[in-house]
Amino acid sequence: MHRTRVRIVENVLDANDMLARANRDDFNRAGVVAVNLMSAPGAGKTTLLERVLAALGDVRVGVLEGDVQGTLDAARLASLHVPVTQIETSAGFGGECHLDANMVRAALPSVPLDDLDLLVIENVGNLVCPAEFGVGEHHRVMVSSVTEGEDKPLKYPLMFRACELVLVNKLDLLPHLDFDLDTFLQHLDAVHPGVPRLLMSARTGEGVEAFREWLVAVATREPAAVG
Amino acid sequence: MHRTRVRIVENVLDANDMLARANRDDFNRAGVVAVNLMSAPGAGKTTLLERVLAALGDVRVGVLEGDVQGTLDAARLASLHVPVTQIETSAGFGGECHLDANMVRAALPSVPLDDLDLLVIENVGNLVCPAEFGVGEHHRVMVSSVTEGEDKPLKYPLMFRACELVLVNKLDLLPHLDFDLDTFLQHLDAVHPGVPRLLMSARTGEGVEAFREWLVAVATREPAAVG
Repeated sequence: MHRTRVRIVENVLDANDMLARANRDDFNRAGVVAVNLMSAPGAGKTTLLERVLAALGDVRVGVLEGDVQGTLDAARLASLHVPVTQIETSAGFGGECHLDANMVRAALPSVPLDDLDLLVIENVGNLVCPAEFGVGEHHRVMVSSVTEGEDKPLKYPLMFRACELVLVNKLDLLPHLDFDLDTFLQHLDAVHPGVPRLLMSARTGEGVEAFREWLVAVATREPAAVG
Repeated sequence: MHRTRVRIVENVLDANDMLARANRDDFNRAGVVAVNLMSAPGAGKTTLLERVLAALGDVRVGVLEGDVQGTLDAARLASLHVPVTQIETSAGFGGECHLDANMVRAALPSVPLDDLDLLVIENVGNLVCPAEFGVGEHHRVMVSSVTEGEDKPLKYPLMFRACELVLVNKLDLLPHLDFDLDTFLQHLDAVHPGVPRLLMSARTGEGVEAFREWLVAVATREPAAVG
């Protein structure tokens, strides 16, 4: 039974990769840079996007918003007057715990790619499966909240390895937590040595400017400003 | 393709239910009450168990510890001198984002059921799939941290509906968050009206006693003290 399950999973991932390539081709044709933003539930992805998306200057940005159910985050981001397209994984996709390339493919006709330079794909809150299913993105970024504990890179190494930038969020809460930042960063370097990281609080705005600059840099295809 | 996927998922869930019943039969034969403890990553499940497991009096408790990778939590709990059995979902189970009945079935020979009254199954940190895969448990409890935001019941309704007790954790951080507890509880009641809930901080110990009493009550098969 186990061998059968592994074979099914491999077939699913092969099909996903094919559709991810098709999505990537569409992004490239339109000159759009796609960023897959991942985290555990409640790590602060939407609050962070509220901070930065309205301040990208000439960069025309849109959002593809993934949730199991509901349109709360999409409504928050639409108020910034950026085009937001919602994917509910419970609606026709079996309540999946992650976005996959097929869901993004199905949503793309509703995304005004020709009017965008940058598409931020806000994934479903989950530290496991989103890292396994590419959706055609050019860049993978994850948000890790200090409230989640120092041990998360060791417990969810695939996610921390799959991304090229780690945003360490909710730094304003550090004085109230049993969380040693140096220990967390050692764990991060143990699973993804030297991966760029930005320390920030999306709530207070501290450190957020560096991520804004990173987004502008990747959207204009300059070398990333982080490293 | 979508229809095929749905059919595969239904078959997987049917097989899971069959194995879950077999697990439940084993628990019942041994007179063990099994509690499936679920939450997002970093909501405080292990810290809470550290608080209560050593204080259960005559109740003989064991833990089945689910993680994608690593044995950090198992080591923390083993120091309480309770029997802990680790399931790594990355080892032979494809890095699954949840425990399922088959994984628990494979681990049961290592669990000293005949020496236990209570088995706490600490699931993988994830607000989606653990609610879909029963493992044979008698009770489902979830931990929801106030750091995750007021909107989580609306965004992950299945998990909040699947459980019979919600532990609202990290209450000590409330003064430092933009989190309105009344709004959260309204959202909770919107998806699972009247579900019992306990407000607590596993870090400070506030409110933890009520959960300890609940565990003792279910382990001795008295009517649950919460309601």
